[in-house]
Amino acid sequence: MKFIHLFGLITVLSMSTRFVRGDEGMWLFNDLPVDMLRQKYDFEPSAEWAEHLMKSSVRFNVGGSASFISSSGLVLTNHHVGSDTLFKLSTPERNIMEVGFLAKTTAEELKAPDLELNQLVNIQDVTETVKQAVTSEMTTEQAVAARRAVIAKIEKEALDASGLKSTVTTLYGGGRYHLYQYKKYTDVRLVWAPETAIAFFGGDADNFEYPRYCLDATIFRVYENDKPAKIEHFLKWSADGPVENDVVFVSGNPGRTSRILTMDALKFQRDLNLPYIMSSLRRQEILLQQYGLRSKENARRARDELFGVQNSRKARLGMLAGLQDPQVLADKAAAEKALLEAVNADPKLKPLASAWQTIAETTQKRAELLGKGVAVNSHLFGIALQLVQMAEEDQKPSGERLPEFSEAGRESLLQQLYSEAPIYTDLDQVLLADSIAKTLEQRGFDHPLCQEILAGKSPSDRAAELIGGTKLLSVENRKAVAAGGLQAIVESTDPLIQLAKIINPEVRRIRVITDQLDEQDKQAYAKIAEAKFATEGTATYPDATFTLRLAFGPVMGYEQDGQQIPAWTNMGGAYDHEKTHEGQTDYVLPASWKKSADGLNKETPFNFVCTADIIGGNSGSPVVNRKGELVGLIFDGNIQSLSGNFVYTDKQARSVSVHSSAIREALKVVYGAESIVKELGK
Amino acid sequence: MKFIHLFGLITVLSMSTRFVRGDEGMWLFNDLPVDMLRQKYDFEPSAEWAEHLMKSSVRFNVGGSASFISSSGLVLTNHHVGSDTLFKLSTPERNIMEVGFLAKTTAEELKAPDLELNQLVNIQDVTETVKQAVTSEMTTEQAVAARRAVIAKIEKEALDASGLKSTVTTLYGGGRYHLYQYKKYTDVRLVWAPETAIAFFGGDADNFEYPRYCLDATIFRVYENDKPAKIEHFLKWSADGPVENDVVFVSGNPGRTSRILTMDALKFQRDLNLPYIMSSLRRQEILLQQYGLRSKENARRARDELFGVQNSRKARLGMLAGLQDPQVLADKAAAEKALLEAVNADPKLKPLASAWQTIAETTQKRAELLGKGVAVNSHLFGIALQLVQMAEEDQKPSGERLPEFSEAGRESLLQQLYSEAPIYTDLDQVLLADSIAKTLEQRGFDHPLCQEILAGKSPSDRAAELIGGTKLLSVENRKAVAAGGLQAIVESTDPLIQLAKIINPEVRRIRVITDQLDEQDKQAYAKIAEAKFATEGTATYPDATFTLRLAFGPVMGYEQDGQQIPAWTNMGGAYDHEKTHEGQTDYVLPASWKKSADGLNKETPFNFVCTADIIGGNSGSPVVNRKGELVGLIFDGNIQSLSGNFVYTDKQARSVSVHSSAIREALKVVYGAESIVKELGK
Repeated sequence: MKFIHLFGLITVLSMSTRFVRGDEGMWLFNDLPVDMLRQKYDFEPSAEWAEHLMKSSVRFNVGGSASFISSSGLVLTNHHVGSDTLFKLSTPERNIMEVGFLAKTTAEELKAPDLELNQLVNIQDVTETVKQAVTSEMTTEQAVAARRAVIAKIEKEALDASGLKSTVTTLYGGGRYHLYQYKKYTDVRLVWAPETAIAFFGGDADNFEYPRYCLDATIFRVYENDKPAKIEHFLKWSADGPVENDVVFVSGNPGRTSRILTMDALKFQRDLNLPYIMSSLRRQEILLQQYGLRSKENARRARDELFGVQNSRKARLGMLAGLQDPQVLADKAAAEKALLEAVNADPKLKPLASAWQTIAETTQKRAELLGKGVAVNSHLFGIALQLVQMAEEDQKPSGERLPEFSEAGRESLLQQLYSEAPIYTDLDQVLLADSIAKTLEQRGFDHPLCQEILAGKSPSDRAAELIGGTKLLSVENRKAVAAGGLQAIVESTDPLIQLAKIINPEVRRIRVITDQLDEQDKQAYAKIAEAKFATEGTATYPDATFTLRLAFGPVMGYEQDGQQIPAWTNMGGAYDHEKTHEGQTDYVLPASWKKSADGLNKETPFNFVCTADIIGGNSGSPVVNRKGELVGLIFDGNIQSLSGNFVYTDKQARSVSVHSSAIREALKVVYGAESIVKELGK
Repeated sequence: MKFIHLFGLITVLSMSTRFVRGDEGMWLFNDLPVDMLRQKYDFEPSAEWAEHLMKSSVRFNVGGSASFISSSGLVLTNHHVGSDTLFKLSTPERNIMEVGFLAKTTAEELKAPDLELNQLVNIQDVTETVKQAVTSEMTTEQAVAARRAVIAKIEKEALDASGLKSTVTTLYGGGRYHLYQYKKYTDVRLVWAPETAIAFFGGDADNFEYPRYCLDATIFRVYENDKPAKIEHFLKWSADGPVENDVVFVSGNPGRTSRILTMDALKFQRDLNLPYIMSSLRRQEILLQQYGLRSKENARRARDELFGVQNSRKARLGMLAGLQDPQVLADKAAAEKALLEAVNADPKLKPLASAWQTIAETTQKRAELLGKGVAVNSHLFGIALQLVQMAEEDQKPSGERLPEFSEAGRESLLQQLYSEAPIYTDLDQVLLADSIAKTLEQRGFDHPLCQEILAGKSPSDRAAELIGGTKLLSVENRKAVAAGGLQAIVESTDPLIQLAKIINPEVRRIRVITDQLDEQDKQAYAKIAEAKFATEGTATYPDATFTLRLAFGPVMGYEQDGQQIPAWTNMGGAYDHEKTHEGQTDYVLPASWKKSADGLNKETPFNFVCTADIIGGNSGSPVVNRKGELVGLIFDGNIQSLSGNFVYTDKQARSVSVHSSAIREALKVVYGAESIVKELGK
């Protein structure tokens, strides 16, 4: 459930409700539900407990979560969160994705080409400053600029004062603004990874299902000044793991939920946006499958991207199924009706009612834009477009730039842009050709922009010419273009940069429109949040924003099709699961597990479920007990949890974790990684 | 390149052009290009030669071609044409698709549950009769009824007079009407099928590619009165097969081409219809893949349908790529411009120019209808809807019914409706749930029809209820419903019949609209055909209509990416091909081939290409030499041939055949089918 693939135009939104259901909630670390925890679980998290957990938590900027697990910088995350790096470190001769990896000494640890890890160290409420910068007299265009400027200023000042990565996060869809400050680790090295065959045992078929038997874990180490970093806050390994029915806590970065959406916005998701995204994902999936069928090496090259697409497709299917369930929508509609009635009944709140109309209008405009963008895309084209836009944006002061080019984010931007990770030009050409064809279909072949893009050739001939002619595969050349500034872009004869210059004005035109729609939504959802605070109270949590949140709930099974699904599986079950699916792809245990079958304690708990409220982005989150000890590692949610994007339920929805004991047992018995086991808890 | 999956709203259209290119042409057997053959190949087909070939040719009503190859009723076709039957005859215990089949004696031959084979025995021009029935004073609605009535009358009278299956075929999009009469074989038994592993060696990756190494062949036998049928016209097996660069002839049933389409209609295909169909196919493909991943038995159940979808998807991709090539479109546009100028310059022809405007208008209406149908579909739902419509239609005289329910076609209809072929309810439920979800997406969840379909449940819950509750799995129950007539339908409490009754009015509403658009197109394309006959002459051929045609061209290789692709492969090449793709799915030769590796003459030619103009539906067509002897078996076209749907080229486009010698060698050495070999040519 990694979230990397972000399609569509949904902005980050928020939710509030007085009566959260069951263990609903992705809580802010600076606003934990202390009363609820005391009442429900007789547990009161101390400030130290919370700070320790917060600072032991790690964010993977590629779209996942993690935690520190030793004083010498060991970081535990999912195999599928690390797989982007495992893939980049792999070659046909050393396919880490397939055979796994173990560094026997720190000298053998492999440096990731472009990983950035973030440790949250400080949160500050800057709502007043941001809100004061945007006045009700401003046009939407002015409001976009003013908000962008004040946020860039806050971030720049915070960065200059602290040296920390500083990001203003919009919460409750615009109701609150918090400044998040992170310590950044960019020297990250691979220590251990199991084979994909056991990390993703059961493959796409078992993804988002339960019971499961996956060792979806990988260990990295962060370095500073070429030495293992000294880490003050890290999680101690629990001796026994979690106890059934007791509460556990998940500290991670849920990517995005949309629980505050109005009915109009939900219907847009259900009838238009999600079907459109699904269709795009299926297209990408078949394309990558077809490329992969041509040879084993092709399959290897496409694998990581294919997994990401399949994962997204299955996740969206779950979300859409939730919205297509009449009961889910009926509950939502009733809640909205009640809120609107309360707002209209109160003269002080009544002016807020216009927010719903605003959302109806922005939603209509989003519907009109759907599928009308420029679909052209590939890794190398993305680099070309970024170089073109960066040269243009750098002509402006930081506060007036598109946020991704502002000074506060520059370092992270360049790390991606200048990554030495391999780009396979044959695959990139296939992606480019298909995305050109898609643009023709979306805009109509005869559209002047399409004719400019094609330059008289078929999509595949044009892609061959572009990828064959570009010099952007070389990082040195990218740096040279960037160093030349706007002049170098204007004069460039690189065919991909020339294509980017053709497409850039249209990309910017659409960006202006969507930025303004986002601004209108922010103002509207801020009003809706205000209405909710006024009628339902403030003891609540905002929608997910890929920032650190605390979720919790007991370890417990559930009923499905009349059967009781137990909370646990054990390691022996993996062997039975293989037997049941004999001969099927993705159900073959790796050689290491077959060799260790006798030595392994088969009773060791393997995977387990709990009711904690998570979503894509939470992958790799540590699961801890009351004492703050590591008892598990989130890696998935079951299929019933996917509608959690819109509404939480704990009837069947469950988070799925690898049990901490299984990781230790596998490290010891299967992988002979005694040195890691020794280091845990140190 | 089987064509079974017909999506969208394209009608059968026709083409004519004075200067056909290279070996362009799918020629009518009653209007063969005798002059061209004499001039180009110094070959003059006698009337006997043509009649013998025509009567030796066989049509598979599931969507393919074939030929008689013995006096005792042996029929040769492709494995992938027969696979529908192979699949229906398979069970988890006897998976014919996987392990193949050989009947050692006629007693062991397996009866197909619902195959219908047609042998064309007579063609008659009925253009005048049909045209006189439709006058220019009629409204479109009246024209639809009048044309339907006169065609039903011709067919009924022909059936009554001859006992032959009689079908009026619309040629040149409405320019000509011919009555085709067929001898029908419905007792068809399986004699021999190889393993899918060698029939479809290289799988989806190699499909529509060349060079190839596929034994895509299967042999059936037709029976009459429970005995092998006596066949007068059958093809003798050539001793040596085809000679390079010499002309060969293909006699088969190309399904549909669209070469006469106006630019407006082509742009609709390019920008809207083909992208829409591709998107539907990808959805179906992923759905079937996902179902198949769950278990080996699921994979078996979904396999045949999955192959059909993948095959269609790849074929459409090739067609779309052709239309997205600016050069292809430029040629088409220039030809249309020249024709329109000639029409407008000639006062006698000028009234025909309105046809282009008509097509522009019908195309616009088709665009508005696209994706606005009712997508609900599954095998069992299809049966329910057919029962409902049949009961209604049977209230009317045959000539007023929807054509598929007229008396002339009744026997073929009932053979399908009462087929004992297995329907897997778990798969059917998955198909039904997804098609309900698709309907919600296409019409909007809140549409009253969608609400009626859902009945308050989610798509998957509703599908479970419908499939769980229906009694239509039993053929006896279907017959009982049909016997009860309209009354039985009205009173039926079967949930699928109830759903069909809900959906039927909307299906009919759309049918009326598309029938009228088709009628307008027929009248318009008749005018365009007239304009072409007047300006370019009549020595031409109509677009494909899934009726028997003759195509021809020399056996010859082609150049691709600077490389010369030879016309032939040989059987030894299959073993090399396996080695090159070691470990990849679909590149593993079956055990029988491994065992026979030494005994096989590896120099035996395996597959070959020629320039004959074919398309989906030609699969299984016999390839014969000047003497009318069987030298090959069409099973595919290369990727470059797919744009042949819109325009023929012989630069790289090639038809791909199994060499007759390879079939004989495999029967002898690999399958030990001496009795079949002996029977060939008898």
